[in-house]
Amino acid sequence: MKHMIYLDHAAATPVSDAVLAAMRPYFQDHFYNPSATYLAARSVRKDLEKARESVAMQLGARPSEIVFTAGGTEADNLAISGVMERYPGANAVVSAIEHDAVLQSVERYNHVAVVPVSPDGEVSLLALKKTVDDKTVLVSVLYANNEVGTVQPIKTISRYLHEVRQNRKKSGNPLPLYFHTDASQAPNYLDVHVSRLGVDMMTLNGGKIYGPKQSGVLYVHSGVQIDPLIHGGGQERGLRSGTENVPAAIGFATALAETQKLRDSESVRLRELQQLMINELRASFPDAKFNSGKHRLPNFVHITVPGWDNERIVMELDERGVQCAVGSACGVSDDEPSHVLRAMGLSRQEAQESVRFTLGRSTTKKAIETTIAALKEITLH
Amino acid sequence: MKHMIYLDHAAATPVSDAVLAAMRPYFQDHFYNPSATYLAARSVRKDLEKARESVAMQLGARPSEIVFTAGGTEADNLAISGVMERYPGANAVVSAIEHDAVLQSVERYNHVAVVPVSPDGEVSLLALKKTVDDKTVLVSVLYANNEVGTVQPIKTISRYLHEVRQNRKKSGNPLPLYFHTDASQAPNYLDVHVSRLGVDMMTLNGGKIYGPKQSGVLYVHSGVQIDPLIHGGGQERGLRSGTENVPAAIGFATALAETQKLRDSESVRLRELQQLMINELRASFPDAKFNSGKHRLPNFVHITVPGWDNERIVMELDERGVQCAVGSACGVSDDEPSHVLRAMGLSRQEAQESVRFTLGRSTTKKAIETTIAALKEITLH
Repeated sequence: MKHMIYLDHAAATPVSDAVLAAMRPYFQDHFYNPSATYLAARSVRKDLEKARESVAMQLGARPSEIVFTAGGTEADNLAISGVMERYPGANAVVSAIEHDAVLQSVERYNHVAVVPVSPDGEVSLLALKKTVDDKTVLVSVLYANNEVGTVQPIKTISRYLHEVRQNRKKSGNPLPLYFHTDASQAPNYLDVHVSRLGVDMMTLNGGKIYGPKQSGVLYVHSGVQIDPLIHGGGQERGLRSGTENVPAAIGFATALAETQKLRDSESVRLRELQQLMINELRASFPDAKFNSGKHRLPNFVHITVPGWDNERIVMELDERGVQCAVGSACGVSDDEPSHVLRAMGLSRQEAQESVRFTLGRSTTKKAIETTIAALKEITLH
Repeated sequence: MKHMIYLDHAAATPVSDAVLAAMRPYFQDHFYNPSATYLAARSVRKDLEKARESVAMQLGARPSEIVFTAGGTEADNLAISGVMERYPGANAVVSAIEHDAVLQSVERYNHVAVVPVSPDGEVSLLALKKTVDDKTVLVSVLYANNEVGTVQPIKTISRYLHEVRQNRKKSGNPLPLYFHTDASQAPNYLDVHVSRLGVDMMTLNGGKIYGPKQSGVLYVHSGVQIDPLIHGGGQERGLRSGTENVPAAIGFATALAETQKLRDSESVRLRELQQLMINELRASFPDAKFNSGKHRLPNFVHITVPGWDNERIVMELDERGVQCAVGSACGVSDDEPSHVLRAMGLSRQEAQESVRFTLGRSTTKKAIETTIAALKEITLH
């Protein structure tokens, strides 16, 4: 098989060698149920709790605030239904470019307000201020968008929500106001320290940080009371029942620690490659529009070029050894243009002229150059 | 480390070599998101669908009836809330010895009736007949109990429920009546062919069949409409959103196929070891009571001996190289006697005098003999 250039790191990342090595013993040698009482099982329990401590440390949280889930989607669902089920009359405020895991989950409740974004994909703080009202119990804003890579001003939003909370206290409104962020795409490149961010709940996803698929975490601040989504044996302090997925939790913790170690160097390295790619694309396709905004992840290049047929381009790039995406791969395929691009003001036509490249650890300068050459070959000849 | 005798197969099973080998390529080489469009990702999608077909074939079901979940607890929750959310006025009927995943899930709804079991742990068909009424939409009965190993008369129950359905048709009652079984402990030893069993929904759990932890399946008959538990990208035909856990699904399918291949021979082999163990225990402890009933899995020996202190025995057996359980390890530890033993009529005292041994692929005749010798040493001297 020919060597492929993988530029779809937002869709999935391979499990790193360190992660696989960390998981490996827990499939067979240390396969015990962590709730069993013999020594070997207690030792597995200890390893699981060490993984939790490691995750907590990376996030500046307490171990008791870390809930291991089966992936990011479940964590989003837990955060949203966990709060909304408790406050039936209250409303939720979300951005227009949330992941489907948040949108579909929140749309099940009657009281939802959606905050628009700028053409750059940034949540409008002004609109958010207008939307949050006395009955808002939950605000959920994606830390970094999974389709275009725009980074949201989480700290600014959390500061504003802190003000709202203070005002509620003064005015005697007892309703809490929780701030959740889906940070699935963030840990490779951004600060995920929960108290610096000022979030009450945060979703993490192992499958996007070189950890195992369907591993994830919901950080839940100790002051936040939520209902479980999955009921049973009462594992994860009652918030996520089911025999713990020990290899996945340990793999997740290893992956998160690795991202934090590599974060600065990979951010610098990929920022350069991203700029190179944008420059080259701009030179070859002067009509190109880049959709990720000023505040973007260093690994996203989301481009719209008038006249492009993105499905054909993705297919032809694939034939030439380059793997990329027409959009998010996080949902089942359908022909609708993505809600993210629509919210950013792109037409259906423009959505079909858009291609997403997402760089990662395996991406080299040569890979970018080969990709540009292949793109030119496909589109200019 | 000394070689341990593992007699807690109902709590967890190690991943088999074949399962690990089947999963291995999907962590790194074939890590792609199955919803992506390039060839390598489509190939992963194909492998995932092949795993689904394999599971379907083992169960005598259609591939479209197989929902991959993160474990048995989630599958139980999906079955129960999936039906109950759709029929707000209707009731559910469950046995008194269901797994907590079913009990805790169903107890969230107001209309639940619990059917008692005999001292043998068998669901009383007579009581079930009295309990199912015109407003019953769901009956859930564990195929084989996870604590004592009693096997329930699933086919008899399904035949009765079929009659009820016929009568409803005649009397013009439009309410459906669905039959769910949690078969987590079953596939190693019992027939799991869904149409022979006559079930509408069935839970399977990879972690109990030498597959990966937090892999599972909910079989949902094509005629059954249920609501999803986890919302988002719409994977698993809308019933379980989240990027598919490809290695886990493939590991699960491999594990299930392996259980079906080994089912007959392992059942015969373990039935003999079980009988040997019971005979030996009876000879050494004449007061012993065996709690699994006549219809029991071939790998369960659940014993109550007056005067035993089960926590001490489990600990001392552990020191002597034998791992077993005071009860189910599926929940977080608490000091309450299990609801299963209480439902079977055991007193708190008797519950504390009970030990569970669950045999499995690694269990030899020598292991049983060593265990009996160790038990005698601990209790008789």
